[in-house]
Amino acid sequence: MKWTKVDILELEKFYRRNLINSLLGFKPALLIGTSNNEGQQNLALFSQVFHVGATPPLIGVLFRPDSVDRHTLNNIRETGVFTINQVKKGMEEQAHQTSARYANHVSEFEAVGLSPELSGDFIAPFVKESVLKIACSFVQENVLEVNGTIMIIGAIEWIEIDENAVMVDGFVDHVALQNLCAVGLDAYYEPQKLVRFTYAKPDIKLQTLPI
Amino acid sequence: MKWTKVDILELEKFYRRNLINSLLGFKPALLIGTSNNEGQQNLALFSQVFHVGATPPLIGVLFRPDSVDRHTLNNIRETGVFTINQVKKGMEEQAHQTSARYANHVSEFEAVGLSPELSGDFIAPFVKESVLKIACSFVQENVLEVNGTIMIIGAIEWIEIDENAVMVDGFVDHVALQNLCAVGLDAYYEPQKLVRFTYAKPDIKLQTLPI
Repeated sequence: MKWTKVDILELEKFYRRNLINSLLGFKPALLIGTSNNEGQQNLALFSQVFHVGATPPLIGVLFRPDSVDRHTLNNIRETGVFTINQVKKGMEEQAHQTSARYANHVSEFEAVGLSPELSGDFIAPFVKESVLKIACSFVQENVLEVNGTIMIIGAIEWIEIDENAVMVDGFVDHVALQNLCAVGLDAYYEPQKLVRFTYAKPDIKLQTLPI
Repeated sequence: MKWTKVDILELEKFYRRNLINSLLGFKPALLIGTSNNEGQQNLALFSQVFHVGATPPLIGVLFRPDSVDRHTLNNIRETGVFTINQVKKGMEEQAHQTSARYANHVSEFEAVGLSPELSGDFIAPFVKESVLKIACSFVQENVLEVNGTIMIIGAIEWIEIDENAVMVDGFVDHVALQNLCAVGLDAYYEPQKLVRFTYAKPDIKLQTLPI
């Protein structure tokens, strides 16, 4: 089946939204925790989060200009910090429910039944139930002129993770952690291990690594 | 286990690279096909590709400033077009091998044994073996000042996909297509269906959808 740009723009709105959002395939399922300066906490599901660099460790997050993510964005602008928490199996319904349009004074932690966890004087809450947590500080904000999408770059301040899930070479075993992935706006998947390969070089056959 | 920013920067280089690259979890496994104006084709594995908008349909791709992806980036700048092709089960070894540093005159299609497929006068080649193919045109290029990462925004020109894998509401069944996902720089996974939920609203219990 082939859809051209013109065909796509003529599709019914929700059909187009599902098609284009699911087209690129599997994405991480992550919860971003924030707070305003008065301690009003917010928790929101994100899948548009990506690696920007390892030295120093940097992460990018995309925000749709018209989305429900505004509370998260405003809190990051106000306090300069946020947390990223992997969604593991068993958390998927609560994680998805955070995407409802709750009023500003409602904490999604309370509304969906997840537990906020604070660390020292870092004002952004972690999700206690998550087994991989990342504390981030705001570095810069960019606007993609093409459609107003906002990109926040964050620096990793610290990482908390079950040490049994980190392999001898630093690779994180997300299957051992039972972390999930997502497609589109509403579907959750449980990945199974297939294969890990050595660094590729021209004309040398790949070997497999423990996975 | 807790690593602070200072701990992370003191980790051995390859350990840090594996840890930070795998931290965010599951990503799509995608091959980007390009050509220069002389018809010299290039194929490269990318996982830093993300949805930027549905109306019009836009996609973002990140390029490390010092990476082997330079041929891809130069070809996109030269011709203004590229293709995105999902990696399905059975293609993972060939897909990974495209990440070797081949010389400029080498086509990764030939080197790894995948088949270039041309469509009309669109100069960027598709991967014939892929079951979900996206033709893109260049829209804009941004540099993230923080570390020189380059972001290309592309507009979707057309999509080719097995119509049996598109559900009645436009959602793409990547499990039916046997598409894979990736973690870090070298690991491939086969997702299994878990659950799909209805649109979340405050104080209304989520229902499940066909997945």
